[in-house]
Amino acid sequence: VGTRDRILSSGAELFRRQGYAATGVKQIVEAASAPFGSVYHFFPGGKEQLAGEAIRQSGALYGLLLPAVFDAAPDPVSGVRAFFDGAAEHLQASDYADACPIATIALEVSSTSEPLRQACADVFGEWIDAGTARFEAAGLSPAPARDVTLAMLAGLEGAFVLARALRSPEPLHAAGAHAAEALRQALAEPVTAPATPRRRARGQ
Amino acid sequence: VGTRDRILSSGAELFRRQGYAATGVKQIVEAASAPFGSVYHFFPGGKEQLAGEAIRQSGALYGLLLPAVFDAAPDPVSGVRAFFDGAAEHLQASDYADACPIATIALEVSSTSEPLRQACADVFGEWIDAGTARFEAAGLSPAPARDVTLAMLAGLEGAFVLARALRSPEPLHAAGAHAAEALRQALAEPVTAPATPRRRARGQ
Repeated sequence: VGTRDRILSSGAELFRRQGYAATGVKQIVEAASAPFGSVYHFFPGGKEQLAGEAIRQSGALYGLLLPAVFDAAPDPVSGVRAFFDGAAEHLQASDYADACPIATIALEVSSTSEPLRQACADVFGEWIDAGTARFEAAGLSPAPARDVTLAMLAGLEGAFVLARALRSPEPLHAAGAHAAEALRQALAEPVTAPATPRRRARGQ
Repeated sequence: VGTRDRILSSGAELFRRQGYAATGVKQIVEAASAPFGSVYHFFPGGKEQLAGEAIRQSGALYGLLLPAVFDAAPDPVSGVRAFFDGAAEHLQASDYADACPIATIALEVSSTSEPLRQACADVFGEWIDAGTARFEAAGLSPAPARDVTLAMLAGLEGAFVLARALRSPEPLHAAGAHAAEALRQALAEPVTAPATPRRRARGQ
């Protein structure tokens, strides 16, 4: 792994655990075992540019979890449960540190850095589009597919906030159960056509 | 309003909008029109003590919204909708700055400051207990009342994250509609006794 990539992933990890403002360039280069000046060599825009790239890169990586978890599940409702359960396990295994890679920085910068807010908005937008497409493929019409995705992602992000502060997986399990039930019901409602054949669609 | 209270509310507002690490004592005293030394006079523990008190105070204030909104609503399901709609309106009116008073700081400090994590956990715990009690009073058994509350609060917190980054009320409306529907169905399920008489209970 090259120096640039090490800086990016060290930055992403620190931003996720402690936020943007608390993370200094010095701490990032130390974690990456890189010389101080290399940050400005690879990221002439300094910490803000580095953070923008870290947001986009970790957002894309985290986005890969969606197809990975859902493709392995027998049906979309089980996929939702598996996604929340996996998030809860990973959070506990990391001593309640590793939740959403971009939520901390998103809340910090939404009112103070337009380029970083836009980077977070682009990542959330990609996740929402990916979830919507997946639930459409499972049989939902576009509007309910998007609504279910938004409510589910909101439940996940908020459960991360609560679970980290409370040091408990309970909010993730509650939010996951509700999201799975909401999806189950949405899939069970015939909207434009009988949903039954599509309900069993798998893997996309 | 005394100097101590002005410092507390200025600190709370800055922590909410831009987070804990980005907010310096200097910025707080300037916003509070207070002399620099007054922070250490009133808060010998400095910024961390100030933040702990700001978290508890703004958490208690925000907690007052729950009874205010629900008491004004004709039934609990309408109360949930009104709560999310009100949050969306307030967020838009503040140019997407004023969401949850403690979520930003909660994510920042959960892995780095045990006293501040505990303050956030205490506030979330009080909100969860208050919501659970209200939904029990509306007719739910304790376990589903707590689950609905957790899922609803998670949906609210996560929708705030998404709405601030996306500069759109859409996530709050989607999460609110799902939370209202989940409560409606939970109240419609007779668990230990027919729920109908209690479903119409109002105001507590």
